[in-house]
Amino acid sequence: MTPFDTAVSRDACAARDTSDPLAALRDRFVLPQGMIYLDGNSLGPLPRAAVDMFSYTIEQEWGQNLIKSWNTAGWFDMPLRLGDRIGALIGAAPGQTVVCDTTSINLYKAVCAASGLRSDRDVIVAEAASFPTDLYIIEGAMKSTGRPMKRRLIGADGPLDALLDDRVAVVVLSHVDYRTGALMDVAAITEQVHKAGALVVWDLCHSAGVIEFAFDADAIDFAVGCTYKYLNGGPGSPAFISVASRHQAAASHPLSGWWGHAAPFDFDRDFRPDAGIKRFLCGTQPIISLRGVDAALDALEGVTVAALRHKSLALTALFINRVSTLLPDLEIVTPRDPTLRGSQVAIAFEHGYAVVQAMIERGVIGDFRAPDIMRFGFAPLYLRFQDIWDAAEILAACVRAEVWRDPRYSRRSAVT
Amino acid sequence: MTPFDTAVSRDACAARDTSDPLAALRDRFVLPQGMIYLDGNSLGPLPRAAVDMFSYTIEQEWGQNLIKSWNTAGWFDMPLRLGDRIGALIGAAPGQTVVCDTTSINLYKAVCAASGLRSDRDVIVAEAASFPTDLYIIEGAMKSTGRPMKRRLIGADGPLDALLDDRVAVVVLSHVDYRTGALMDVAAITEQVHKAGALVVWDLCHSAGVIEFAFDADAIDFAVGCTYKYLNGGPGSPAFISVASRHQAAASHPLSGWWGHAAPFDFDRDFRPDAGIKRFLCGTQPIISLRGVDAALDALEGVTVAALRHKSLALTALFINRVSTLLPDLEIVTPRDPTLRGSQVAIAFEHGYAVVQAMIERGVIGDFRAPDIMRFGFAPLYLRFQDIWDAAEILAACVRAEVWRDPRYSRRSAVT
Repeated sequence: MTPFDTAVSRDACAARDTSDPLAALRDRFVLPQGMIYLDGNSLGPLPRAAVDMFSYTIEQEWGQNLIKSWNTAGWFDMPLRLGDRIGALIGAAPGQTVVCDTTSINLYKAVCAASGLRSDRDVIVAEAASFPTDLYIIEGAMKSTGRPMKRRLIGADGPLDALLDDRVAVVVLSHVDYRTGALMDVAAITEQVHKAGALVVWDLCHSAGVIEFAFDADAIDFAVGCTYKYLNGGPGSPAFISVASRHQAAASHPLSGWWGHAAPFDFDRDFRPDAGIKRFLCGTQPIISLRGVDAALDALEGVTVAALRHKSLALTALFINRVSTLLPDLEIVTPRDPTLRGSQVAIAFEHGYAVVQAMIERGVIGDFRAPDIMRFGFAPLYLRFQDIWDAAEILAACVRAEVWRDPRYSRRSAVT
Repeated sequence: MTPFDTAVSRDACAARDTSDPLAALRDRFVLPQGMIYLDGNSLGPLPRAAVDMFSYTIEQEWGQNLIKSWNTAGWFDMPLRLGDRIGALIGAAPGQTVVCDTTSINLYKAVCAASGLRSDRDVIVAEAASFPTDLYIIEGAMKSTGRPMKRRLIGADGPLDALLDDRVAVVVLSHVDYRTGALMDVAAITEQVHKAGALVVWDLCHSAGVIEFAFDADAIDFAVGCTYKYLNGGPGSPAFISVASRHQAAASHPLSGWWGHAAPFDFDRDFRPDAGIKRFLCGTQPIISLRGVDAALDALEGVTVAALRHKSLALTALFINRVSTLLPDLEIVTPRDPTLRGSQVAIAFEHGYAVVQAMIERGVIGDFRAPDIMRFGFAPLYLRFQDIWDAAEILAACVRAEVWRDPRYSRRSAVT
């Protein structure tokens, strides 16, 4: 059985849903009636059990127990406890991950710390096609190192091989390209970076919770990622940062707030960082939003990332197959090779903006990335094979109807 | 009528509650039965209307509308919109305040930016008695400036007058001392700092929402503060940062994430900061926790900070008066002069830890700060004069009963 064998009919897709071992997970999420949600790579849906967890945190823990909840409800420990839960999804043993702040800020900590661990080197390598905030944050981090640093961009300045030398301190890479959906070979690239004597920071925003990652097995140095895409933690829920145990004692960053102190309630005058991963905490975290991460991780209980990845590949394969069949002229940017594909399918099309708007109006939620990318995310937790069939049909109907001639779908600024 | 004239009896306090023009505000908050909550300077209580606002944001905006809510529910604009609302409480005209990240991280941005605006100077002045994270963050910010910086500490190294010279770039001060409750003379100190050619960063954590602050009128350069104390935004709700319009175009900091970009959805490769206050944003904010700030600001509608300050002073005066009468040997650390007093009363007592624990067991929630400070916060939004009378009685009963001899109240680590 290949992932493509269900593509013969909608009935075959429905049958595959019936036998899908992950099918029951869909009930763990609130999904609006009649909507096919292919934007879980931007904002995951609300886990059903989150509603009661939020209420309890708001009305009981905050409302009734107030300040005591810092201890009794475990608020103090949430960044570490949730960090270990995310660590389990990305192959990181406990004590190496915390949930806090934003991806941008965690990337800043990671790049500063990694640069400090390679203080005899002065180059940071990043991807020209990186999600822009990664490049912006690297700019800021370079200025904070206290020494002149240079940036080399994979793509603009050459391939990674050509950019690696003994001046490179850090390489920052995305596990999955946010536009094309291409997946990197983490093990091979990390080994290559390490052979050059540099450290690696992996951005897992578009893979955490849906694609396997082997933080410990691949000897990753640092990883960061968000919790509101495939992890479904809620809008803007706090991000995570993972730092390998072997680096922690020497890894320092300038966001030295009291939550990173070895003894925050001793109220010492000088900063003395915690010996472990807590040194990557800074200030007080938004507890209610953190509780969304808690609920979202509960919704992943009992399922392995390997099983999610298996279904994700089947979903994207089905979509690629259907779109190729229905619209053979469209350019599918995402690699067809499953070892090179993330959990999304990107299609380049000059009228992509209008098509995405028209599809949204017809209940299929995808998004658009300038200049011409239609982007569809495939979350195996709650999508059915029949949804994929229908989404491809609706895409084809919109393209065949030339919806871009309709002024209702004219360009406006894109959504995150 | 002086603030002390109600102190003759509990009945007089109850009568004063009846005539209190702010008395009705108490109904806007959830207050546990039988609890006198004097810890609103650590975590404010749940605004009653917040419950429905959170539910709507979680179940409708996130649950049903999903990604569209970034535009339709105004999620994108929340940091600025809430910033302007907080600006109105601290005397800052619109366009100078954003709500985002944590106080620690916002202080980092402020100190980095202020140092950059005084790049010919190399000294940062702070208070030795500052809340420690302020000192820790200054340490980190000094390392990020790209030039050697020195720290001078008010108290440890001398009084402010003696520390100000033409090497001082920035002075970081707290409006209210988190331990003693002493209030600074913002206008006079800011003028003094400006005369020395330096910039000032005010930490408003213990004053925002309860004590008047004149950001524009006093020509403040930068201010930061939290929203979960007297502003009641919920546990760890995002903090704020205010930057004077005159500084914004030249003020830069290294946390250059995409939310601070002039055109975040153009996905440029290089960072080009927004021309205004948005350059102090960095990454995606925790929307649900931000909604708590929204609800909390609603609970302040129709009341002036001046009226809150007036009642706050009356409450603290009553407490000081009652404690002095009942327990004349206790050392009240907080200034009796209302122009020098914040919204809390701190009492130094060697058995303070046990007394605070015993009071908590009797329904009066205060907190303890090592080595010997019992700290009671007085929030005029929801406290009654009769509560203050009762709290003083319970304090006196605990001291007279020598509760510290009871092993139940033995020392453990303090709560934030």
